Amino acid sequence: MALVVQKYGGSSVADADSIKRVARRIVETQRAGNQVTVVVSAMGDSTDELMDLAQQVSPDPPGRELDMLLTAGERISMALLAMAISDLGAEARSYTGSQAGLITDRYHGQARIIDVTPGRIQAALAEGAIPIVAGFQGVAQDTKDITTLGRGGSDTTAVALAAALDADVCEIYTDVDGVFSADPRLVPAARQVPYITYEEMLELAAHGAKVLHLRCVEYARRFDVPLRVRSSFTDKPGTLVVHEIEENIAMEQPIISGVSQDLSEAKITVTAVPDLPGEAALVFETLAGIGVNLDMIVQNVSADGSTDITFTLPNADLGAASAALLARQEEIAFGELLQDEGIAKVSLVGAGMRSHPGVSATFFRTLADAGVNVEMISTSEIRISVVTRAEDAAKAVQALHTSFGLNAEGEAVVYAGTGR
Amino acid sequence: MALVVQKYGGSSVADADSIKRVARRIVETQRAGNQVTVVVSAMGDSTDELMDLAQQVSPDPPGRELDMLLTAGERISMALLAMAISDLGAEARSYTGSQAGLITDRYHGQARIIDVTPGRIQAALAEGAIPIVAGFQGVAQDTKDITTLGRGGSDTTAVALAAALDADVCEIYTDVDGVFSADPRLVPAARQVPYITYEEMLELAAHGAKVLHLRCVEYARRFDVPLRVRSSFTDKPGTLVVHEIEENIAMEQPIISGVSQDLSEAKITVTAVPDLPGEAALVFETLAGIGVNLDMIVQNVSADGSTDITFTLPNADLGAASAALLARQEEIAFGELLQDEGIAKVSLVGAGMRSHPGVSATFFRTLADAGVNVEMISTSEIRISVVTRAEDAAKAVQALHTSFGLNAEGEAVVYAGTGR
Repeated sequence: MALVVQKYGGSSVADADSIKRVARRIVETQRAGNQVTVVVSAMGDSTDELMDLAQQVSPDPPGRELDMLLTAGERISMALLAMAISDLGAEARSYTGSQAGLITDRYHGQARIIDVTPGRIQAALAEGAIPIVAGFQGVAQDTKDITTLGRGGSDTTAVALAAALDADVCEIYTDVDGVFSADPRLVPAARQVPYITYEEMLELAAHGAKVLHLRCVEYARRFDVPLRVRSSFTDKPGTLVVHEIEENIAMEQPIISGVSQDLSEAKITVTAVPDLPGEAALVFETLAGIGVNLDMIVQNVSADGSTDITFTLPNADLGAASAALLARQEEIAFGELLQDEGIAKVSLVGAGMRSHPGVSATFFRTLADAGVNVEMISTSEIRISVVTRAEDAAKAVQALHTSFGLNAEGEAVVYAGTGR
Repeated sequence: MALVVQKYGGSSVADADSIKRVARRIVETQRAGNQVTVVVSAMGDSTDELMDLAQQVSPDPPGRELDMLLTAGERISMALLAMAISDLGAEARSYTGSQAGLITDRYHGQARIIDVTPGRIQAALAEGAIPIVAGFQGVAQDTKDITTLGRGGSDTTAVALAAALDADVCEIYTDVDGVFSADPRLVPAARQVPYITYEEMLELAAHGAKVLHLRCVEYARRFDVPLRVRSSFTDKPGTLVVHEIEENIAMEQPIISGVSQDLSEAKITVTAVPDLPGEAALVFETLAGIGVNLDMIVQNVSADGSTDITFTLPNADLGAASAALLARQEEIAFGELLQDEGIAKVSLVGAGMRSHPGVSATFFRTLADAGVNVEMISTSEIRISVVTRAEDAAKAVQALHTSFGLNAEGEAVVYAGTGR
């Protein structure tokens, strides 16, 4: 008997009919001989609606109260799902994050899970019931206040529970068939990937793929939880995320897993920073001080003893970052601060890159042929990312998807060259 | 510094503007030098909307899950109210029933409060914060499951908290100005009563007045909590419910506090029951066995050694009660079972009745003059109730309201007669 944790996102439980369909799938999984624990998000757009209400009463609501408000969303969906399961003759019991033992720190809106004590969930499973757990929420260890986990929270709840319960698999149900080689809205020929490694999935999630949140993948890798991403609207097997792809399967795997784009970042260039020890550090300390995460960083030393520093950061942090730097302009002694919101990041990810030379050459040749100008470059062992103009991103993704043979009916690319 | 518990019903927090208005009232109360604890119901019709959703997924949802679902309603209103208060510069913290220490038995949908442990509420008050507590809900002592208190639940939460906190007053905010001498929709000349005793309020609540629930008044009387019923839309002082009305005020109080009607009951007559010891008991045991509460009971013994038993019961229980009795028709050996849904109960309530003879005489003379036929009679020390045809109820209430001088511009009635 396998223990399966299933997570259903908001689009899978958007209305009464969807909830009933999900209930049937859960009951079928149990009747097939499995123990099932379910994690559920709030229905459809209900979180946005609650946010709207909050904005109507206060422009800047306290985090503690916003968390109290938003957690009502999962409370509704989990109770309805438990009812729908009960209506099919199985026993389901819904649990809040607090009841399920999701213990977090006290940072409202972005709490981190620090412990999972799933005693009530284990007791329910032992009695043959199906526990339905609210995603996205927990309880702060010290204040006992209700917290939310922030973006990707429900996926993280599912993985954390799967780890604590030592589940055989954690299935993430969504409205797409699995992980794709590119966003199908951008690349109609994108194909669904049957297997992917945690490493590749981390790179894709960190660079624009939205199907799984970075945090959930990190958690799954750390606690060795097999993740399956699949659609709640079909019976397709979806994509399995694992440590290593077995040899016999790996033979058939393409070298490249996918191409992603990310339009959520902006670029800042600080010009004419004195090229002295500690000057660049002042720039980065200033940004760290206000909690801004930088992504790519490029520094060029010029002949006259000064340097330009360029970095990318989340669009949402652009204003705060610029203000913080300008406030210290004299101290850092930089020339100008240039903002650029019109950028995109395009990334190519594949574990096969390690052992296949020539990927870089093909990558840059493809972009050049497509007429895409590259502004910044960053690489890891299994990823190449470039910053381009935002309006070039789709073209770049499509060209790369084709040239690396990822199109559903395409042929494998032949690599020439001696390295990247 | 007084400690005030304020309870706001769903109509007082129906939308963002209402919530902001209520927030201003709460903050004003605190700034006037009081400690304030707030109990809040779900917004407007939101409980009905959640019930609708439940019906869409299951015709007969489990009580545990229904409670989990419905408690989302207060979670939303209390968080929004805390945000609105925070926006006015005061500190508010919302608490679920469980967090506020509302400990109940395990009967979902109709749980009884068995303990209140308001440690977190007291801590918040000590820090100068305004605790906002979810009405209507608690946590079961043994199962730790979320429970709801059923009808009148939020009022009961407020009174129970006021008792546990030893509050100076429990204010019940609603959409009417207080307790009226009759339903103003029925009697436009009805007047708002400034003071009323628990006893009178209990009689009115038990016999059709909807402004306060019987259970909340019982709880307030038992734990000696002064209750004030007032409107959240005006600054009027409302109605104070107390043990005894002070002598100097009592002088000006009318003998009669109010006239109520109740259209929620039905009547059953069981004919030709053998007039032998234990036969009537069988009828009442049968009904008690299925949990039906009877109100009035009349038994007439006939000449032929059999008896007719007539009683009133909630309309909602009529079907179940009839079925249970008919199932034992041979055993009880009754003749016929007659159902009557077309009745109303009209009641006159007033502590002054005790010391003023002639109230009954005036009561029945008034009904006779108004052409209202009386089918059953029941009295307590401070109440006279009759069953009439449903269509005569309004006429009866209006006639009694006038003849007992309750009309806002009316004169005090002169009692004649020697007793009732």
